[in-house]
Amino acid sequence: MNTENLDSKRAGGAGMIDALITPALLLDESKLDRNIQRLASHISALGAVLRPHMKTAKSIDVARRIYPGEPGPITVSTLAEAEYFADYGYKDITYAVGVSPAAAVRGLELSRRTGANVKFLLDTVEQADALGDAGRKTGVVPSAFIELDVDDHRGGLKPADPNLVIVAGRVKAAGVDLVGVLSHAGESYALSTKEALVAAAENERAETVKAANVLREHGHACPIVSLGSTPTAHFAENLDGVTEVRAGVYVFFDLVQHGVGVCTLDDLAISVLATVVGAKPEKGWILVDAGWMALSRDRGTSSQKVDQGYGVVCDEQGRVYEDVIVSQASQEHGILSIRSGSSKAMPILPIGSKVRILPNHACAMAGQHDFYSVVNGKSPTIQARWNRMRGW
Amino acid sequence: MNTENLDSKRAGGAGMIDALITPALLLDESKLDRNIQRLASHISALGAVLRPHMKTAKSIDVARRIYPGEPGPITVSTLAEAEYFADYGYKDITYAVGVSPAAAVRGLELSRRTGANVKFLLDTVEQADALGDAGRKTGVVPSAFIELDVDDHRGGLKPADPNLVIVAGRVKAAGVDLVGVLSHAGESYALSTKEALVAAAENERAETVKAANVLREHGHACPIVSLGSTPTAHFAENLDGVTEVRAGVYVFFDLVQHGVGVCTLDDLAISVLATVVGAKPEKGWILVDAGWMALSRDRGTSSQKVDQGYGVVCDEQGRVYEDVIVSQASQEHGILSIRSGSSKAMPILPIGSKVRILPNHACAMAGQHDFYSVVNGKSPTIQARWNRMRGW
Repeated sequence: MNTENLDSKRAGGAGMIDALITPALLLDESKLDRNIQRLASHISALGAVLRPHMKTAKSIDVARRIYPGEPGPITVSTLAEAEYFADYGYKDITYAVGVSPAAAVRGLELSRRTGANVKFLLDTVEQADALGDAGRKTGVVPSAFIELDVDDHRGGLKPADPNLVIVAGRVKAAGVDLVGVLSHAGESYALSTKEALVAAAENERAETVKAANVLREHGHACPIVSLGSTPTAHFAENLDGVTEVRAGVYVFFDLVQHGVGVCTLDDLAISVLATVVGAKPEKGWILVDAGWMALSRDRGTSSQKVDQGYGVVCDEQGRVYEDVIVSQASQEHGILSIRSGSSKAMPILPIGSKVRILPNHACAMAGQHDFYSVVNGKSPTIQARWNRMRGW
Repeated sequence: MNTENLDSKRAGGAGMIDALITPALLLDESKLDRNIQRLASHISALGAVLRPHMKTAKSIDVARRIYPGEPGPITVSTLAEAEYFADYGYKDITYAVGVSPAAAVRGLELSRRTGANVKFLLDTVEQADALGDAGRKTGVVPSAFIELDVDDHRGGLKPADPNLVIVAGRVKAAGVDLVGVLSHAGESYALSTKEALVAAAENERAETVKAANVLREHGHACPIVSLGSTPTAHFAENLDGVTEVRAGVYVFFDLVQHGVGVCTLDDLAISVLATVVGAKPEKGWILVDAGWMALSRDRGTSSQKVDQGYGVVCDEQGRVYEDVIVSQASQEHGILSIRSGSSKAMPILPIGSKVRILPNHACAMAGQHDFYSVVNGKSPTIQARWNRMRGW
């Protein structure tokens, strides 16, 4: 394969956006920097540490924008991410998925090899025992959070659940270092008013701190009190008793977050560049070469007030075409049309024209691509190519 | 990164399924072979050629199961697929996405470099001109199909549209070789009775042959009459006038095809192996380490009679747990629960247990992975690791 030539085109060829092979994932670095700065300032002002979730960007280059100097604390969703970032010098890593026996051994082997402190998540005595076994097998003392359930979203224990103290005792008995409690207000994604988001943030804080205090009453120091979701992180007004906040999608933002009310459309840092490949004027359709393989199948806005289809359509420079969305998607085709109920007309886009499509869900769209073509505002040139890692 | 050790684990370590890092994409080679044989026999008996769509498997190893001897005709959804397969000796390639000016040049450069005959798709005079320009630029005579619309699914021209003859004339005038007409009965995915599927197949055939005859009346030879979708390919009873049939997902099948009525659950050749990482017995939930990143966000069965959530759950050997589905998915978590309305009880699955999850849409699930761990029936060992290509 003539990969050299193709890789050069994929990275921008002569460095121009309009020479990119489409569909291509664009990342606007000025928006990225602005988003990073915004949450960092907010969390710092509230006296907590931000532990960004790397599952969104999965890129050392994005991590370096968050931490331009030394590597700092991070969260990961897979052990492959933990391995990738540990090999770039990240040593303080929370693996925020419930630990299985095999994952415990693999994570501790990473600790032994790189010196990284991989902190695991658990909510059962079985996991405490498995982690203890893995510690003995690998010769590394494991670290664990107890996962909390603050809003009936997924896993975790309620602060009042007697299992909280039972599991904590088993963690200690298994020879595991109990580093604290961890919660995620996942239901905040379903909200859309400031009042509700502030309340969700305060509930997340209060419940998490309550659980930490229960453990302290039972003799566990519980040094880390960790919580977070992108909506609650931005709407938190008080983090008393919290030591750290986790958030991921905030670096890029997306249409779901826009629908929740966390960001403006102008904050969305990633998009897919697509080429017009057909039209059905009698139906008001324009066809592009970006389907769900490039956009992802995510339809997160379908349950929000404004359903954005498979994404909002912008011109090649990123200016939104009002009420134009990707209304249908097959594997490599997207159909652009006017949002139902709108009186706007479709823009005129001849074959070969380019558009940018904003994501419903940034983690999902980015996950369909192997690299970012980094752009900056309205500049027609590619600033850099940043690779993404993937897999498990 | 200790990639050697990890790669070995990802490929099965000692060759056992239960040593795989999860989530992992499994492919049962005996089901694959059976599915391949089934459609090949059917199409051959009807007197047409099968031109498999490689967008589902994206793997030279799967292609070699279809063509154990010499490479044969294939369909692709991206030029990266065309390049990948051309470099493995595939020379007869239909690129089944409307051609853009840049794609025309890139495809013809591939033809010049490898000798592959890349056939393009178009339905406008602008595309005919762009393809002609690309031919002059690259010094290769381009080949083109005119895309037909037989069921209002996406792009293409109706057989009675006067543009059909106009575009054909322009193709010829542009110095492009008009190889035929091509249709895709995409709406057949929405059907679910044998009568409707047989009728859709006959409609696809009749409309496509009609368009070919219109062109012939205007002096175009139209040697290739190409149609296909997995449902119509299997339910076609007559292919008079058709020279070739295209289908993709038939190699693996999936829950959507099962809902349409094209296959049984036992025909589904791929699944994701996942590990239990938690439970919420009071809610009837079991949590696994496979979320939408491993399963895809595809919810294709949500509009069918039986909504399969994010997939049907089987035990580690692939035996279906009746009425257990993945009811919710976040990035790296899946929630297993009993289908709404069922009186079944959840199976008992301790932390560390393994399950297999069948796909709503095989193309989408496979697209989330870089390789297949090839298995065979109930054998606990991995037969091989087959890589997938990706990107554009």
